[in-house]
Amino acid sequence: MLVIKIGGGAAIGAEAYAQFAADLAVLDQPAVVIHGGNAEFSALSTKLGIPPRMITNDKGRVTRYTDSETIDAMLMTYCGKVNKRLVGILQAAGVNAVGLSGLDGRIAFGRRKPVLRGMEDGKQKVLRDDHAGTIEQFDTTLVQLLLDNGYLPVLTPPGLAEDGTPINVDGDKLALGIATALSAEALLFFSDTPGLLADRYDESTLIREIDAGNPDAAMDAAVGRMKVKVESALKAIDRGVGRVVFSDGRAEHPVQRALAGEGTVIRVANSVAARRENAGS
Amino acid sequence: MLVIKIGGGAAIGAEAYAQFAADLAVLDQPAVVIHGGNAEFSALSTKLGIPPRMITNDKGRVTRYTDSETIDAMLMTYCGKVNKRLVGILQAAGVNAVGLSGLDGRIAFGRRKPVLRGMEDGKQKVLRDDHAGTIEQFDTTLVQLLLDNGYLPVLTPPGLAEDGTPINVDGDKLALGIATALSAEALLFFSDTPGLLADRYDESTLIREIDAGNPDAAMDAAVGRMKVKVESALKAIDRGVGRVVFSDGRAEHPVQRALAGEGTVIRVANSVAARRENAGS
Repeated sequence: MLVIKIGGGAAIGAEAYAQFAADLAVLDQPAVVIHGGNAEFSALSTKLGIPPRMITNDKGRVTRYTDSETIDAMLMTYCGKVNKRLVGILQAAGVNAVGLSGLDGRIAFGRRKPVLRGMEDGKQKVLRDDHAGTIEQFDTTLVQLLLDNGYLPVLTPPGLAEDGTPINVDGDKLALGIATALSAEALLFFSDTPGLLADRYDESTLIREIDAGNPDAAMDAAVGRMKVKVESALKAIDRGVGRVVFSDGRAEHPVQRALAGEGTVIRVANSVAARRENAGS
Repeated sequence: MLVIKIGGGAAIGAEAYAQFAADLAVLDQPAVVIHGGNAEFSALSTKLGIPPRMITNDKGRVTRYTDSETIDAMLMTYCGKVNKRLVGILQAAGVNAVGLSGLDGRIAFGRRKPVLRGMEDGKQKVLRDDHAGTIEQFDTTLVQLLLDNGYLPVLTPPGLAEDGTPINVDGDKLALGIATALSAEALLFFSDTPGLLADRYDESTLIREIDAGNPDAAMDAAVGRMKVKVESALKAIDRGVGRVVFSDGRAEHPVQRALAGEGTVIRVANSVAARRENAGS
C-alpha cells in the first residue's frame, strides 16, 4: 500500500499528472493519491481579487486568514479543477480514479477555530469566520472500501468541521494522517525539487538517505517548509509507515523512480523493516 | 430507492440544503442526490470575465460554447464549491455523504465533440476545443457500492470523455440516466417553482397530476425548459422509473412534501405500478 502526495506547485500540472497516471496504471499494489492545489488556488484568488491576509500570532507563527470567500476559492480549485482534471487524466490512462475531499465520508474530521487573533500589518486584530482548525480524526473506512473494490482514491483538502463547514488542512498533514491510518508501506512526497537538498539552491547537494533513528544532521540541513516535511516524515515512520521518499514530481515515471530510491529516502537503518526490504520481499 | 435532483438556481442555497439534509437524515430508504450549480457557475464566469458564447446550429438549436476555461469554471463551481458545501451540510445533519462528479468511477462516460459549428452574432463560426458531448454510458457500480455501505452519493456534472477531459452534461439528464440505471422508485426534481404550471407566471395554476399514458394536455401546457423536463419525466417512466415529481426546492421539508405528492406527480394512471402504490406497499 502506497500513499502518494502530489504537490500543488505550478511546475506540476497536466503533463506531470499524465506521467503519474502512466505509472499508476501499471502499479502492482494498491495506492491512494493525495494532492494539493496551491498554485491554482493562488491564481484564482488573484483573479477574484481576494488578497491573502497573513496573521502573526504571539508565538510568531504566521497563518493565512481563511474566511468563507477564501475557503470557497479553495474548494473550487482543490476539490473542483485540480481534483477532477487529475481524475480525468487517470481515467484516460485506465485507472479507475475517484476524487474525494476530506469532507466526503468524514475522511478528515476536526474542530474549527473560527476566531483568529494576532498581528496584521503591525496592528492587533481579532478576525472571525476563520476556517482554520485541527483534524482530530482520520477515518479511512471510505478509502479502504474503494481500495478493496479496485478504485484509486484521489484525495484533497479541505477537511470537515463539526458544523459542516470546511476546515483548511495542510495537504502534507492529510497525507501523513492517511498513510499512518492505513499503515502504508511507503509515503511518497512529490514536489518541484529532486528531494531534500543540503543547499536548497543547488540540486547537486541532494541528500540520498536519512536514517530515521539518527536524523539530526538532516534536520540541520532542512530549512523552512522542508523542515516541516522532514519532521512529518519522521513522525510517519514513528507511527508505522515503512519509509518516506521525497522525490521529483516533474520527472518522467516519477512513481517508479521514487520506488527505486531516487530522491531522499527516510527510514530506520538496520531495522527489521529495512532488512526485509533489502531481502526483496 | 429515490433519485433526488436539486436544481442549481440562485433561490436554492445553504438554507434550502439544510432543509434537504433534515429530510434525508430521517429518510427510510436509500437515495442518490444529484445537483446543479448554474447560479454559482454564472456568478464565477462573470467574475472571471468569461462571457457566455451562444452558438446556433443549422437546426436552430442554441448551445453554449464550452472551452477549457469555461469547463474549468464548471468544475470549480459544480464539483468544488456547490458539491462540497452540500456534502458538509449533509454531514452536519448526520448523513454520511460522498460528493462525486460524472468523471469519478466513470459514472457518466461519453464521447466529446470538440468542434462546434454554427452562427454566432450573425457570422458562421467553427469553434474548436468545445467540451460538449453525449453521455453513452451511465455506470452505477460506484454509486451502488456506496449505497450498499450506507453512504449517500451526491453527484454532479460534468461527465468524462474518452480522452479524460470533462464533458458538459445537463444535470437533469444525469438524474434521468442514474434513475433509469438504478430503476428508481421515484425521481424527484426540485427547483424554484411549485411544479408544472399551466400558466408559468401564476403559481396557482399548478398541474397536480399527469398521466404518463396520456400526457398530451400537459405537454401543451409546458413551455421552454419545462417541456424538456416533462419529456425527460415521460422517458424515465417509460424506462422503468416508478414516478416523477416536480416539486418546490424552496419549501420546508421538500423531500417529505414531494413524497406526499406536493407538486406535479407524473406516473402511469391505473397501471399495475400505480395500483401497487395505492395499496400502500
